[in-house]
Amino acid sequence: MYRVIKNEGAARCGELSTVHGTVQTPAFMNVATQGAIKGAVSAYDLKDLQCQVQLCNTYHLHLRPGDKLVKELGGLHRFTGWNAPILTDSGGFQVFSLASLRKIKEEGVNFSSHIDGRHIFMGPEESIQIQSNLASTIAMAFDECVENPAEYKYAEQSCGRTVRWLYRCKDEMERMNALSDTLNKKQLLFGINQGCTFDQLRIENMQKIAELDLDGYAIGGLAVGEPKEDMYRIISAVEPYMPKDKPRYLMGVGTPGNIMEGVGRGVDLFDCVMPSRNARHGHLFTEEGIINLNNAKYEKDSRPIDQTCSCPTCRRHTRAYIHHLIKAKEMLAMRVCVMHNLYFYNTLMQKIRDAIEAGTFEEFKRNYSEKYDTRI
Amino acid sequence: MYRVIKNEGAARCGELSTVHGTVQTPAFMNVATQGAIKGAVSAYDLKDLQCQVQLCNTYHLHLRPGDKLVKELGGLHRFTGWNAPILTDSGGFQVFSLASLRKIKEEGVNFSSHIDGRHIFMGPEESIQIQSNLASTIAMAFDECVENPAEYKYAEQSCGRTVRWLYRCKDEMERMNALSDTLNKKQLLFGINQGCTFDQLRIENMQKIAELDLDGYAIGGLAVGEPKEDMYRIISAVEPYMPKDKPRYLMGVGTPGNIMEGVGRGVDLFDCVMPSRNARHGHLFTEEGIINLNNAKYEKDSRPIDQTCSCPTCRRHTRAYIHHLIKAKEMLAMRVCVMHNLYFYNTLMQKIRDAIEAGTFEEFKRNYSEKYDTRI
Repeated sequence: MYRVIKNEGAARCGELSTVHGTVQTPAFMNVATQGAIKGAVSAYDLKDLQCQVQLCNTYHLHLRPGDKLVKELGGLHRFTGWNAPILTDSGGFQVFSLASLRKIKEEGVNFSSHIDGRHIFMGPEESIQIQSNLASTIAMAFDECVENPAEYKYAEQSCGRTVRWLYRCKDEMERMNALSDTLNKKQLLFGINQGCTFDQLRIENMQKIAELDLDGYAIGGLAVGEPKEDMYRIISAVEPYMPKDKPRYLMGVGTPGNIMEGVGRGVDLFDCVMPSRNARHGHLFTEEGIINLNNAKYEKDSRPIDQTCSCPTCRRHTRAYIHHLIKAKEMLAMRVCVMHNLYFYNTLMQKIRDAIEAGTFEEFKRNYSEKYDTRI
Repeated sequence: MYRVIKNEGAARCGELSTVHGTVQTPAFMNVATQGAIKGAVSAYDLKDLQCQVQLCNTYHLHLRPGDKLVKELGGLHRFTGWNAPILTDSGGFQVFSLASLRKIKEEGVNFSSHIDGRHIFMGPEESIQIQSNLASTIAMAFDECVENPAEYKYAEQSCGRTVRWLYRCKDEMERMNALSDTLNKKQLLFGINQGCTFDQLRIENMQKIAELDLDGYAIGGLAVGEPKEDMYRIISAVEPYMPKDKPRYLMGVGTPGNIMEGVGRGVDLFDCVMPSRNARHGHLFTEEGIINLNNAKYEKDSRPIDQTCSCPTCRRHTRAYIHHLIKAKEMLAMRVCVMHNLYFYNTLMQKIRDAIEAGTFEEFKRNYSEKYDTRI
């Protein structure tokens, strides 16, 4: 299912085969929280943006329109019109960040919907059932994502529970995949490593979950408040214990620099709302660094956002026009900016893959990881 | 420049040749107020929507980003990326509807910008200079649009002034088109018939402005508060006095039914914010009538908005998905709905042209003019 094609140090490029198509890794997954990329970008646009994987959020889709309805309509692929791999998160992250009146117990979590206050219970079985209804390509295990910095005692306790939940997720996934009316009977399950910023806890947790021989492994609970040095240290500490023949996913990360550092430490998959969110505020990634198109200096700038970029936006529109659209509060501003930033991320991953294949990734990272993260 | 191809009663189909391409009439002009269609639709999308003419608003573009800046950047075509005809209105309508502290005198109008309160003066010369800077294909004469119902005395007075302004517009247009640094030296000028709902005033006004031998004639000051019967009566009254060999434009109109009634009375060009505005609220035109996608009954509806429609939205998305996008407040909802409604309008015009060519327009109008305007 996953095949490493080439290594350069810990960095690797590879191929993840799924029932919905093959993903060239390292890859960035484009976040379509509610079944659509924010900023009026559709699944049909994603093809022009070199996107390989669409990521949808289980919590949001469970609340609205409801996973049963999505199932009735043929699953997320039919619903959104995306015919390539989709990853759904477990809902855990949002339960812990968005929902209110949260109560965690061994079975799962009781919480109130952030939309209408409705009481909902979600445990490992519910999360997997919902993801099975959504019929994503890859489902994520239901976990607790603890904010950093955390107390060691709580982190250890939470970690233990998340491992027990993982066993239940695996059982439930096997059960769901065997049901005759399940839409995607080959749904994959990724486990999630937790343990906050405690190296030993992270390692022990990774060793435990590696035993389950899942389809892939994620590192969760990073980029949630800790300094990036801690994040990099944890990835380096955990990586040797992650199965080499399984894809590795660093959840919710990050800036172009973060991604390159992750790849350099052996990570294959990433996701982050940053490119689309920043774009909606006029902050655009370019070969030279990050520009802010709100700035008056772009008022008469007839160049594209990035002169080296071939995205639909850069092929068509000038900085001056987009600056005007932002000032005029035209929705089109968000769309063209989001398209540019996603294309930047997706083609960055292509450049990373090419560099690993050519054995020049370290050099590429040295040249660009800081540059791409810098506001100019 | 304008050639009638076929008549059916007063209805006619024809061809308007301009320096930016040929327009098949009757045509609907798609409104891109600030240089972009509201709802994240770009000039590049308009081609897929069968749009022939983009309409931009002089008042808005003068205020932001400024017509001099647009000129510096190569004019509206380069600025928005639209390489077919563009019509700009004169700014008059917005001066009278949006601006505050308005003071009309013989020279023109003093007013305050609705954006920042800045004092601005606009008269016929200024309006034409701005439109020349924007470099649209067709410029509109600067007029006063009086709200209905109006006092006869005021209507008569205003009408007289608008005629005097028209002479000044024509002179200024000739002057601008002769300047060496004018971007579009073949900019066309349309005059505007006014006179509120007073038939005789309208006719006399039309006779006077017809003498100027302009490139086209519009009927303005309708669809501004009067019953539609009054609107139809005025069009019928004025039409015999409009030059047969010039395109006729009914400003700011209207529903599909209004458009068909206008065509039946000899009108060639239309514009209206209705299709895009209604779309942004989830109200969609279909072959069966107008549907409201906010409605819960569409929650599980896996059909496209209109089963007979080939627009990008109907080829891709279900009512259920779009209903979800609306409920989830995803910007993509507006984009796909606006695209559908504009396509509906633009292809309606194609159907009207085909019907006139086939001599079946009256039948077409009888069958559809009420149906298309009805909420179902």
